[in-house]
Amino acid sequence: MTTIRLDVAYDGAGFRGYAKQDGMRTVQGELESALEAVLGAPVATAAAGRTDAGAHALGQVVSFSTDADVVAERLGRSVNGIVGPEISVMAASVAPDGFNARFSASWRRYRYLIGIGPAPDPLTRHVVWHVDRVLDVGAMRRIAEALVGEHDFSSFCKKTEGSAVRRVEEAEWREGPGRLELWIRANAFCRQMVRSVVGYCYDVGRGFSDPSGAADVIAARDRSAVATVAPPHGLTLWEVGYA
Amino acid sequence: MTTIRLDVAYDGAGFRGYAKQDGMRTVQGELESALEAVLGAPVATAAAGRTDAGAHALGQVVSFSTDADVVAERLGRSVNGIVGPEISVMAASVAPDGFNARFSASWRRYRYLIGIGPAPDPLTRHVVWHVDRVLDVGAMRRIAEALVGEHDFSSFCKKTEGSAVRRVEEAEWREGPGRLELWIRANAFCRQMVRSVVGYCYDVGRGFSDPSGAADVIAARDRSAVATVAPPHGLTLWEVGYA
Repeated sequence: MTTIRLDVAYDGAGFRGYAKQDGMRTVQGELESALEAVLGAPVATAAAGRTDAGAHALGQVVSFSTDADVVAERLGRSVNGIVGPEISVMAASVAPDGFNARFSASWRRYRYLIGIGPAPDPLTRHVVWHVDRVLDVGAMRRIAEALVGEHDFSSFCKKTEGSAVRRVEEAEWREGPGRLELWIRANAFCRQMVRSVVGYCYDVGRGFSDPSGAADVIAARDRSAVATVAPPHGLTLWEVGYA
Repeated sequence: MTTIRLDVAYDGAGFRGYAKQDGMRTVQGELESALEAVLGAPVATAAAGRTDAGAHALGQVVSFSTDADVVAERLGRSVNGIVGPEISVMAASVAPDGFNARFSASWRRYRYLIGIGPAPDPLTRHVVWHVDRVLDVGAMRRIAEALVGEHDFSSFCKKTEGSAVRRVEEAEWREGPGRLELWIRANAFCRQMVRSVVGYCYDVGRGFSDPSGAADVIAARDRSAVATVAPPHGLTLWEVGYA
């Protein structure tokens, strides 16, 4: 058995998310059927981040094991020839035994882009949430700072089984001309966590929520404490870290 | 009569170029029909750059005169409500009498993006010419330097009436991670000039043409001296200068 690691980028606009779902066009579904076509047998893949419908990735990591005799680099090219321009295998390599893109990952880093101005830039409209009002970036930064550390993020998570305790290692709003970028890194994220963080920061930034309430919102452990979920197309899984 | 200036951005992928053509979907055509719908009468627009089919703009400038009683800012919003996400009026203002987006312009600046790597990045594939080979950037820079100044650019121009003499004020290749950007500014450009410059630089960068031949290629004043025209989707009209 050989374990293969694929570093994958995709434009999520045309997909019902990363994770395979019956009858839906998903990134995992497209990748696995391309891999099956190349390898001659089905494979079960693991991925570092199960991005939402419409969200993107630049540094998604996918792994699988195969009995087939593969040259990793050639495999990447073959898959790219099948999946089309919305998905690119950026690198393919043989991974150490036991490597699993999901369970071996020690952190994930996401970027969320907000564009601010009277009209959206047509050239980046697929990756930018366009907002036509001035936001209080200082207040948004206070929220980001309050999120750093190990917390129960139930207020920011779509209901799932299991714990919502996550360790946020970095959460920073950076300002550029006409744009705001959230860079957030954590050991792992629960469902809709980044989009809920952005939605809450946005509500604070436009004066709908009080920036001093972040600790209370976290402590509430209640999904209804966060009113806004930012749209998925502003979100990109940027990088995954392995020990 | 009021003269209006519009600063316009567009994703050129879905258009047969900027300039109006019968029966074709063009940026000018879409803009003028939106303006007619808003103003209640047809207008004739002028534009700083007639970008090719598939090329983009971030800072296109368009002007027209109208007898209608217009509030420029509201006009911009109304046009944006009609033209859809591929075109955005980024700013609308009243221009001085006699202002003409084309004839008043003193320079145009374009950016051309080349992406280098084993596979294209899906998130920027609409604005990046993807190339899977290493290019000799030093050689490409020598070409760019040789182009600066006033020259007859017939070798770089699709045949047109009139002179191909243009004054290039800036031509520089900048390197980023996995990408090369040509920034080029001139008083004006003839047809396919930037794409021909990029095509020639690319041929030099991959070793197909001799970097010392730039002066000869210019002196030839012959379109066949440049073998390669880079594809339009890497090209963006970035900014237009007015005295």
